[in-house]
Order: sequence, then C-alpha cells, then structure tokens
Amino acid sequence: MRIDLWLIGIGTGNPEHVTLEAQRALREAALILVPQKGPDKSDLAVLRHRIIADAGATAPVQEFDYPTRDPSLPYKDRVRAWHDEIACRWQDAIAKAKPDGPVALLVWGDPSLYDSTLRIASRLDPTPTLRVLPGITALNALTAAHAIPFNTLAGAVTVTTGRRLRDHGWPEGAETVAVMLDGQCSFQALDRDDLIIWWGAYLGMAEQILDHGPLDLTGPRIVAARAQARADHGWIMDTYLLRPKGLT
Amino acid sequence: MRIDLWLIGIGTGNPEHVTLEAQRALREAALILVPQKGPDKSDLAVLRHRIIADAGATAPVQEFDYPTRDPSLPYKDRVRAWHDEIACRWQDAIAKAKPDGPVALLVWGDPSLYDSTLRIASRLDPTPTLRVLPGITALNALTAAHAIPFNTLAGAVTVTTGRRLRDHGWPEGAETVAVMLDGQCSFQALDRDDLIIWWGAYLGMAEQILDHGPLDLTGPRIVAARAQARADHGWIMDTYLLRPKGLT
Repeated sequence: MRIDLWLIGIGTGNPEHVTLEAQRALREAALILVPQKGPDKSDLAVLRHRIIADAGATAPVQEFDYPTRDPSLPYKDRVRAWHDEIACRWQDAIAKAKPDGPVALLVWGDPSLYDSTLRIASRLDPTPTLRVLPGITALNALTAAHAIPFNTLAGAVTVTTGRRLRDHGWPEGAETVAVMLDGQCSFQALDRDDLIIWWGAYLGMAEQILDHGPLDLTGPRIVAARAQARADHGWIMDTYLLRPKGLT
Repeated sequence: MRIDLWLIGIGTGNPEHVTLEAQRALREAALILVPQKGPDKSDLAVLRHRIIADAGATAPVQEFDYPTRDPSLPYKDRVRAWHDEIACRWQDAIAKAKPDGPVALLVWGDPSLYDSTLRIASRLDPTPTLRVLPGITALNALTAAHAIPFNTLAGAVTVTTGRRLRDHGWPEGAETVAVMLDGQCSFQALDRDDLIIWWGAYLGMAEQILDHGPLDLTGPRIVAARAQARADHGWIMDTYLLRPKGLT
C-alpha cells in the first residue's frame, strides 16, 4: 500500500514557532509518528506531545525509539545503516497502526536542513507519496534571537558542519559561516583572530542560552557554558554563525 | 522616545506559513507597519492584510511606499541610500501614529535572510529595541515544495546571489549552491554540464511554479517560464538550488 507521508517541520523548541499549516496537517493526519531520539527523551517528548495537543489533533500517536548507531562502521556507512534501521521501524509502526489516511511525522526544525527524515523516507517500500511542511530552522531561530542578518549585504553564506570546519578550516572565500551538527566546539580549530561568533543553544526554548562577541574572547566562554549546560540537561543542541569583524 | 520594534517574518506567501508567535505578536502590537514594495503592490498587499486579519489583530495598520533606488549610484551605495530613505519613512509613519506600545513590521520570508529590514532598523534614531520573529524562508519553501534536502549527507551549502554567481562562477569547493536575489537567471553563466537545478517561483502561493532537472535541459525551460510568468503577473520572486548529479 502506498502511504501518504507528511513530514512536518515543528521548529526548534518554541511551540509557538509551529505554523498554521503544521497545525492543520496534524489535525488532518490519520496517524502521527513521534520519534524518541537518544538523549532528549524526556524534555523533547513533552514538547512534541504539547504541539500535537495544541493543534487539536485527534489521530492516534505512535512513538518509536531511534536505534543506536554502530560505532564500528566508518561515518557515512554508519549513518546509512542507521537510516535503514529507522526505515524498518517506521514501516513496522505504520503496518501495526494500519492508518486510513495520511501519516504525519514530527520533524525537529525543518525536514530539509541537516535532517535524516527525507533520506529515511526514500527507503520505504513502496515509496511513499511525500509532502514536506517547512518549519523554522535552528538557523532562523539563531539569527532571530541575536537580531542579526544571516548574510552581509548581498554577500554569501556557507552553511557547514563542525566536522568540516575541523577537517578543512575556514571555507575558501567565505564571508559568513553557519555551523551545524557541531558536538565539539570546532571553532576552536580555526586559526583566525578576526572573527565574531554568535552562538545559541536550546534555541527557542525556555532554556535558551545566547552568547556573542570576538571569537578569541567568547570562544572559551562558550566551551565552558556548553559543557555546563550539557551536564545540567543531559543533552544539548546548539549552532553558531561566524563572520569577520567589520563585515555587515 | 525609544521604540519597541518587532520584525515579524511572515513566510513567502502562503498565509498558513505564518507561525503562532507571529499571530500573537500581531495581536499584541500597538501599530502595524506594512511596506508597499515596488512591483508587488496589488497581489502581496492583499496577502499582508489577510495575514493581519487572520491573526485577529486590532491595531491600526499604517502603509508606506518604498522609495525607488537611484540608478546613478554604484550598487552598494545605491542600496545604502535607499535604506536611509526607508528609515526616514518609518520614522515619519511612527511619529504620525504615536503608538502606545510595540510597533510591528511585516517582513516577507524571514527578517534575517537577504532582507534589508534589520539594516534599516539600525538607522533609526534613537535605536529601537528590536525583537525578531523568524519566518519560513524562500529556501525552506523551495526545499519543502520539491521534497528535497537542502544539504547532502553531512555536506556544506553555499547560499549566494545571482550577481555573485555571474561574477564569480560556481563557488570554489561547493557541493550545493542556493541562489537568491537573481533577476537574470544567472545559472546560464555557469560552465558545467553536471548540475541538477530545483527552481521555484511564487513559492507557497497559489501561483507557485516548480521545475527541476538537469540544468542543461531545464535551464532554458525555466528562462522561458520565468519570462512568461513575469509578464503575466507583473512581478516575480523565485529562487533555486543547484547540485551536481549523483550527490545525495
């Protein structure tokens, strides 16, 4: 049976970042799948259920645990094997629930930005009919919280990962760099003394932490604040933007 | 008097892309400023007023026309002079309305992404207290409409402008390139035969047009469709994403 699968971006933790379209889709879905991801089980599960309730959704809600990744595999193979396993869990959850209509899946942020959901959906057999509902991303939330432009005037932005920043340094010719998926404060690997950093953790949530300033002074403060916050909460999600001083 | 200025991202034309936070802010504002921008006066003004009405806002709505740019100045000077002039018009509109509370300004898409609102706000005297509410961007809407990831698996994305693509070609080392502010189908200047393009115009609106495929075949089709749509509507807003074949 070909499934109608709706991937619904829900923003980064502020239940008011949900769009009217997302609320309507939650009300119209026949089944709502809620992933339970690693470290965030308690805080974020509460939030997802609140978003479903606020929307006035009445469909059954099916939770499923995310598998753990196999640390023995190289990075990309590890991620691909993990996506295969998640696709199996979706398939099982849907087969069990036998929904008579669209299946909605809540996706943190936006389903297109450093998120695995689209790649997992492409593994389902038969291929589902996909509908993607955009959500406020961590980058939207970061620039809004700091009230800064994402780009300099008519300038370019490189969106990259912590791993790439560590492995390749400052991207060739970049003006602004936005960094995602960085568990290691990879800005520490940069050999430049002219950068400003705008950092945010738990963006949009009541726990939101912000800091910004010259990287040489602010970087060590962020490393300490991040370690403390991670210890306090048991998990952390954060992102940041870097730009040379004087560029506007 | 120091003004509380709320810059409210409203998404790219689908009134259901508005967030709950944006709706609440519109209800809480004491004055709502609605820019009337160049070519989009009729279609988009209707949409902005619908968003204000749907939110249940009761504050007075003050419209103001955008000035035209001085074509005799070089690009960046021209933009700066234009921002100065817009700041004066805001200041006049606010002085006339004498709001007893926050001033809300509707911003197409997200106030941080290739938008002048933050730069104009910084010209107000005295400097306002800023609050930025993130909105669904054209890039969110583009990737959602095509149901594609923004980035390759753990890959980087360069967000750039049509002008830069024409002047500098494919950004050094880029995997995915997202192009904004391109009035000239600048993908035509690229000397590569391995690219896929995902293009969208009037994203999120009833008039939305999408196309995608190998750039060599799809590019000429987009150039024609864009010219036709622009002639039909009197204006066009579009954006696109480019990625080499085979990258996922």
